[in-house]
Amino acid sequence: MRLRNLKNKEDIINNCDFVIKNIEENKGKWRDIFNNNNPIYIEIGMGMGKFIYENALKNPNINYIGIEKFDNVLARAIKGKEKLNNLFFVRMDAKDIDLVFDKEIDKIFLNFSDPWHKKCHSNRRLTSSYFLNKYENIVKDRVNIIQKTDNMNLFIFSIESFSACGFTLKNISFDLHKDKDDIITTEYEDKFVKKGNVIYYLEAYK
Amino acid sequence: MRLRNLKNKEDIINNCDFVIKNIEENKGKWRDIFNNNNPIYIEIGMGMGKFIYENALKNPNINYIGIEKFDNVLARAIKGKEKLNNLFFVRMDAKDIDLVFDKEIDKIFLNFSDPWHKKCHSNRRLTSSYFLNKYENIVKDRVNIIQKTDNMNLFIFSIESFSACGFTLKNISFDLHKDKDDIITTEYEDKFVKKGNVIYYLEAYK
Repeated sequence: MRLRNLKNKEDIINNCDFVIKNIEENKGKWRDIFNNNNPIYIEIGMGMGKFIYENALKNPNINYIGIEKFDNVLARAIKGKEKLNNLFFVRMDAKDIDLVFDKEIDKIFLNFSDPWHKKCHSNRRLTSSYFLNKYENIVKDRVNIIQKTDNMNLFIFSIESFSACGFTLKNISFDLHKDKDDIITTEYEDKFVKKGNVIYYLEAYK
Repeated sequence: MRLRNLKNKEDIINNCDFVIKNIEENKGKWRDIFNNNNPIYIEIGMGMGKFIYENALKNPNINYIGIEKFDNVLARAIKGKEKLNNLFFVRMDAKDIDLVFDKEIDKIFLNFSDPWHKKCHSNRRLTSSYFLNKYENIVKDRVNIIQKTDNMNLFIFSIESFSACGFTLKNISFDLHKDKDDIITTEYEDKFVKKGNVIYYLEAYK
């Protein structure tokens, strides 16, 4: 989804009190930011933030961190949202994730991640072994990843990558919206489902 | 596929010189039956035998054993086939597989296995942990399983079961006949493809 450039995106981000700056300083101390010991769930590549915001509203006893790389997208995610006690946003590239978190994350959501079609870019896919190894360093107990995508090739790549890295896969669906009700969707997901695309889903544990 | 009962099925099986009897006596010694050291590939539930027969014709330097539980199906698999040096048939239930083979199998084909729809029968599925553990005892070096099915639920169950048992999955396809040419098919497969069903495919290694 190409978004029109927001001219004041820097101002929106800098003035937002639920965007955390100096993120590396909080490494290992994210529970202090929330001021409680509730579990911390992160979404890597939150896009416009609908999914994580609705999750945070629905589950006040879980802490959420939405991660987005692109200023333009993050600024749009901020707009129209109120500060919640259990939700913060972070601007960063996923490849730096192990510089920002340390043994403190309980669940990782990967929703409609960039499939990076070209084989030579496969390491950039958020379920490549490059990233799976990083996730092992940021989780508290075990790795718990929830993935949704409408991209079959990314889904197949992910299954193969998870299995090669010793993950156990559960609750796989080849058509999530047929198999399940009460789904908190992303903006992309709503569009894809309207178009008739199936949504693939899996849970990966290690 | 329900088959009409063959009245002389016992005779057909007993008179066939490429059906091995007293199979447990050959445990650990199947290379002697073939009289060479070529790899041994087995198909568990070969049905009418088209797949394994065509494989044996195409690959004379690989030994094949077709396994079928039902007399009526085995008798039909025999009819119209000639003895080949690299192919034998065996009548047995897959649950006895580790009584019949010991560290001597190189590849296992599971084609269109019974999905055993009911959850209470899930252990009977040929990719359940019950069977995966047995396969580990019959293979020479590592387990190498090739699975084809048109049953999405069985395929999903298999992916989850393989991952839970520490297998690595490769070359997954959600539509084998779209992704690949030159496929040696089973009788079922031809029918399913004609009906427009997709064929799921995976390779599992451990």
